[in-house]
Amino acid sequence: MISKALYEEVRAKALAMYRKANIILTDEEKDRLEVADFGLEDLYNQGLQIITYVNTQRVCAKEMVLLPGQTCPEHRHPDINGNPGKEETFRCRYGEVYLYVSGDAVAAPKATAPEKSKSAYTVWHEIILKPGQQYTLMPNTLHWFQAGPEGAVVSEFSTRSMDEADIFTDTQIKRIPEVEE
Amino acid sequence: MISKALYEEVRAKALAMYRKANIILTDEEKDRLEVADFGLEDLYNQGLQIITYVNTQRVCAKEMVLLPGQTCPEHRHPDINGNPGKEETFRCRYGEVYLYVSGDAVAAPKATAPEKSKSAYTVWHEIILKPGQQYTLMPNTLHWFQAGPEGAVVSEFSTRSMDEADIFTDTQIKRIPEVEE
Repeated sequence: MISKALYEEVRAKALAMYRKANIILTDEEKDRLEVADFGLEDLYNQGLQIITYVNTQRVCAKEMVLLPGQTCPEHRHPDINGNPGKEETFRCRYGEVYLYVSGDAVAAPKATAPEKSKSAYTVWHEIILKPGQQYTLMPNTLHWFQAGPEGAVVSEFSTRSMDEADIFTDTQIKRIPEVEE
Repeated sequence: MISKALYEEVRAKALAMYRKANIILTDEEKDRLEVADFGLEDLYNQGLQIITYVNTQRVCAKEMVLLPGQTCPEHRHPDINGNPGKEETFRCRYGEVYLYVSGDAVAAPKATAPEKSKSAYTVWHEIILKPGQQYTLMPNTLHWFQAGPEGAVVSEFSTRSMDEADIFTDTQIKRIPEVEE
């Protein structure tokens, strides 16, 4: 459960990051900004702020904010009922993102696994994204990502998002945020 | 056929618009900027500048520029071999876009049909998009759009683009641009 005060605090920080990245949002979008703590109560270390522009049966686009050093926990998008899972492209718009996927582990990673959940970060093939750079993940690819010291704004272009279907390495995670009323 | 000189002139104007909209592009993207005149040789009136970020079997994302008053001609994305046609969301990032689709015609449209091809603009239901505003088009929806006096930068989030399959109202149109070597 995210307290109302923490939600508002983090929402204000996220909106400031969108402004830095010169991303223009409607008031309606700002009002429904999602703050996800993944049920870990470790929001400044493990969390993600999301504005979903569109999510139809076929296409999804989001604008995401990572606060400085914040990490989106390791997960994958499985096939569902015989249909291929979510495919997604991350495009960095501001700051720096360290993205990790299956493959040869990097010797000296830019990111550090969050202290509270270290064992739930298992893939260490590193992709560094600076503004204007992007990377496409096919369905079922295990991945996680962390912002650099300035935080990051990242666009996501993907097939339909079904967040509740995501499979996280950390089995304690609850994807759908619960914010105090 | 677009002359090399005209391509370079319009490419420079498009890159200036991306800068105004604070869209960060890689050099590789700038080098492959598409200038489409639809074979009409009326580029400043009917044309579109496009950077395709990604176009896989399932997802496409583009960043488009319309120069001031420039129009993307009327077309639709048909079903192909029994598969649904392209679905797309336009999100205005800079300037103003007047989008026209099937439905009740507006009494006093903001846009004017390009002189050279007037009869090929047949749908007049108007949607005005300012920065931060967006609109989703389902497959097969006849549509065209024109930029306001400042031009426009528009993000497109969609299913796979197969430009060569688009059906234009103006049967003279050739979608795939030919630029002088």
